[in-house]
Amino acid sequence: MNSINLAVIAGDGIGPEVTSVAVAALEKALGSVELDITSYDLGSDRFLATGEALTESDLQSLSQHDAILLGAIGDPRVPSGVLERGLLLKLRFAFDHHINLRPSRLFPGAVSPLRDASGIDFVVVREGTEGPYVGNGGALRIGTDQEIANEVSVNTAFGVRRAVEFAFNLASTRDRKHVTLVHKTNVLVHAGKIWLRVVEEVAAKYPDVTHDYLHIDAATIHMVNSPQRFDVIVTDNLFGDIITDLAAAICGGIGLAASANLNPTGAFPSMFEPVHGSAPDIAGKNLADPTAAILSAALLAKSLGYLEAAERIENAVEHDLANRGETKRSTDQIAQSILELI
Amino acid sequence: MNSINLAVIAGDGIGPEVTSVAVAALEKALGSVELDITSYDLGSDRFLATGEALTESDLQSLSQHDAILLGAIGDPRVPSGVLERGLLLKLRFAFDHHINLRPSRLFPGAVSPLRDASGIDFVVVREGTEGPYVGNGGALRIGTDQEIANEVSVNTAFGVRRAVEFAFNLASTRDRKHVTLVHKTNVLVHAGKIWLRVVEEVAAKYPDVTHDYLHIDAATIHMVNSPQRFDVIVTDNLFGDIITDLAAAICGGIGLAASANLNPTGAFPSMFEPVHGSAPDIAGKNLADPTAAILSAALLAKSLGYLEAAERIENAVEHDLANRGETKRSTDQIAQSILELI
Ligand SMILES: CC(C)[C@H](C(=O)O)[C@@H](O)C(=O)O
Ligand SMILES: CC(C)[C@H](C(=O)O)[C@@H](O)C(=O)O
Repeated sequence: MNSINLAVIAGDGIGPEVTSVAVAALEKALGSVELDITSYDLGSDRFLATGEALTESDLQSLSQHDAILLGAIGDPRVPSGVLERGLLLKLRFAFDHHINLRPSRLFPGAVSPLRDASGIDFVVVREGTEGPYVGNGGALRIGTDQEIANEVSVNTAFGVRRAVEFAFNLASTRDRKHVTLVHKTNVLVHAGKIWLRVVEEVAAKYPDVTHDYLHIDAATIHMVNSPQRFDVIVTDNLFGDIITDLAAAICGGIGLAASANLNPTGAFPSMFEPVHGSAPDIAGKNLADPTAAILSAALLAKSLGYLEAAERIENAVEHDLANRGETKRSTDQIAQSILELI
Repeated sequence: MNSINLAVIAGDGIGPEVTSVAVAALEKALGSVELDITSYDLGSDRFLATGEALTESDLQSLSQHDAILLGAIGDPRVPSGVLERGLLLKLRFAFDHHINLRPSRLFPGAVSPLRDASGIDFVVVREGTEGPYVGNGGALRIGTDQEIANEVSVNTAFGVRRAVEFAFNLASTRDRKHVTLVHKTNVLVHAGKIWLRVVEEVAAKYPDVTHDYLHIDAATIHMVNSPQRFDVIVTDNLFGDIITDLAAAICGGIGLAASANLNPTGAFPSMFEPVHGSAPDIAGKNLADPTAAILSAALLAKSLGYLEAAERIENAVEHDLANRGETKRSTDQIAQSILELI
């Protein structure tokens, strides 16, 4: 490709301000490669105006792109959950983003709440299309004293295997070549058994990759006591959601955490987004940290094969962070510094 | 009561060594109150010998006591999950331990992995008889590429309300009088709605107690960035499992974390246990920290109304920890120090 056909969903709150910086960074890093952008006005304004979060024709149109860059979704005017499920999760499911990839690295200069955070460098491979996220629940006698509400976690060998295979494959390219399965197999027996079985099956095909297992509760302990032990973590959709926010926090905060929703088959475009939300309280105030969005753009470049551009962005962020110190800078200041460094 | 009819399940691994210290501490703190102990040989040995983890007659006999003190369950010779579900969870469900209470306080002298852990002092009220712990799952085409495994989380207004009421009631007795609901309402909509609704209903009856809401992923971030913000957390069985291990870690480790499985109706005995597991690797080596078991005995004394005895134990632990420093001491050394201080 000598041009990238990019869909941009800037979204709500701080989404637009961080996304525009990320696009600028991507553009600069790509050099002569052309960036052909279609902007989508998806988010709370559109939803409030039309009552629809995402139409079939949006999906159809988005699916024609090489990749999607997303800012953030969520607004106090819209009930919690509506846009998350109607837009964000709908995109992940419709485009079969079964690999939710979240690198966790302590950049030099980043400020961790941990006393010893040196050398943290792991990646979480979060399954993206199953588990308790399938929306397979329901309730009876709603609003009464007799209400009962169920949520169903669905786990298939097919879905688990592609996540586990991705994780082992990724680990085989890394220095430490280690995979940790995180689950709660002693309580969630049926789902647990599938994950344990598939990990053993896949591990047999990767003799140079070691692996171990941690319950999710124990994993959170290691995350604050010895996060350096992790190399590649593979886990389900919900445990992955939890552990990646914790991972972001110990690496200096979700202002720095990038993520990729990948469909490695290429059947649909992958989607790249910062882990943080729309932070409506600081929107438009030149306070948001655009770093996570910029790093998400680097993941985007990497996934489309523009490795050099990705590296250029990551190096710029790394240099910027190393000099950033603990003084609070504005969105513009961070943007300018990183853009100059690219 | 001038005597306590206590059932002791020392269990596996380090269970017996920490439990015997906890019993000694309880005995000393109770002074003239008689401790009438029945020991139960439940755990891996019994299971391996008989194939049964817990019989109806065990349950019948245990139910006759004022309280149960449990050490730890789990052994490498028994497949993971068997004793957890067949013994520990079975006790919690059979005796309707719907309040799983886990105080999280940074004792002076305890060593946190956080740079700023000063002043952490909150309590987690974990619902104990519902959620994804109900064992309501199943699998199809097991062991094949077409396997599908489901887990069902069950949430009732009845179950949620008694946990939420306990939490607000507890908060109303504390200085800060604040309850934080932790859930994932933007994804687990049906379960989420019941929790949100019941919290609003109960909150209306406690005008002097404030409350807020955090998603579980965001809660883990606050747990490492500003744990001081928490007063009383109320949450479901699984989120409670995760957040209390993380809470224990930031307060100096699960070697110090106590828990109470309460049945506040008194219909069945409540059960008290350290949060840590059986740690078979250090069992019998005089290395286990008995503090969590001792603090669990204090919770037991408190729940039976022996407030002075409970305070005596807690003060002794506090003094011991303040002088403990970072040098590693043996089980016996810690036991001796705390027993002397009681
Ligand atoms: C907004 C929410 C639905 C989402 C999730 O739970 O996946 C977010 O927390 C994330 O991690 O991307
Ligand atoms: C051993 C296990 C079943 C148990 C749980 O998940 O409740 C433990 O982790 C705990 O927190 O007491």
